[in-house]
Amino acid sequence: MNSFFRFFAFLSVALVLNLSTKAQKYQGSQKDIDIILTNIDSFSHFYMSGQYKKLSECYSSSGKIFPSGSDIIEGTENIEKKWIVQDDIKIIRHVISPIEIKILDDHAYDYGYYEGTTLLANGTTTSWKGKYVIIWRKEGEEWKIYLDIWNRID
Amino acid sequence: MNSFFRFFAFLSVALVLNLSTKAQKYQGSQKDIDIILTNIDSFSHFYMSGQYKKLSECYSSSGKIFPSGSDIIEGTENIEKKWIVQDDIKIIRHVISPIEIKILDDHAYDYGYYEGTTLLANGTTTSWKGKYVIIWRKEGEEWKIYLDIWNRID
Repeated sequence: MNSFFRFFAFLSVALVLNLSTKAQKYQGSQKDIDIILTNIDSFSHFYMSGQYKKLSECYSSSGKIFPSGSDIIEGTENIEKKWIVQDDIKIIRHVISPIEIKILDDHAYDYGYYEGTTLLANGTTTSWKGKYVIIWRKEGEEWKIYLDIWNRID
Repeated sequence: MNSFFRFFAFLSVALVLNLSTKAQKYQGSQKDIDIILTNIDSFSHFYMSGQYKKLSECYSSSGKIFPSGSDIIEGTENIEKKWIVQDDIKIIRHVISPIEIKILDDHAYDYGYYEGTTLLANGTTTSWKGKYVIIWRKEGEEWKIYLDIWNRID
């Protein structure tokens, strides 16, 4: 192997190591992590398809959301109302990208980024990005959102 | 006791019960809770007195803050820079009011409200209020902030 190829071999290893430090960090039983990851995807699905009742059921009955410009909102019924978007707009993209999920017995914390695109009444779209922290609670075999707080990046 | 006094006795009990449902809920060893409550007060003290180095040491070395309008900021040095206020303004009031603190072994979650007042360069003041979620980590005998996210109410 000449020095040219040695350089590229070094570069590849450096790149992989660098990528791995940016990767997700999930700590806890794979089963718990998988349920939470599935719930995260379901949340986006329910939000985009306007299934607000199902969206609200992602939360514990004593769940709380912390929207900007509002007091803390508690309980699935109040949470459902808050998530409903106006009739004339549509969420056409919603992606949650967890960075770290850590199971702490029957609780877990989870933080990362979210982003999405809204289709406005006038036919134009607007995209947004933010970050979040969630506290999950294990209820039976299910994981429910207990605390959900987020804010925008720009 | 006539019916007038019975009514007031009933009212007093109702009032106390109502207040207690709004009271703080702290779960975990009193020692851990007391350290966290002391740290919460110290945080406000360091912020108001401009002791930014000490403020940043309230965080774990891998601590993260989630300020509105910014990416996630990591590490005590970067966190310190973010908290420094402009030379010509002063935080003259900062109060954190936790609603719930729950110790989960060597982690804890904590959520509640914060409020404060800023003295502006022109001599006027502006007040603000928001809500927050913190994930604490026990490091030795000390509790440090690992995740700190908040947003404004108005």
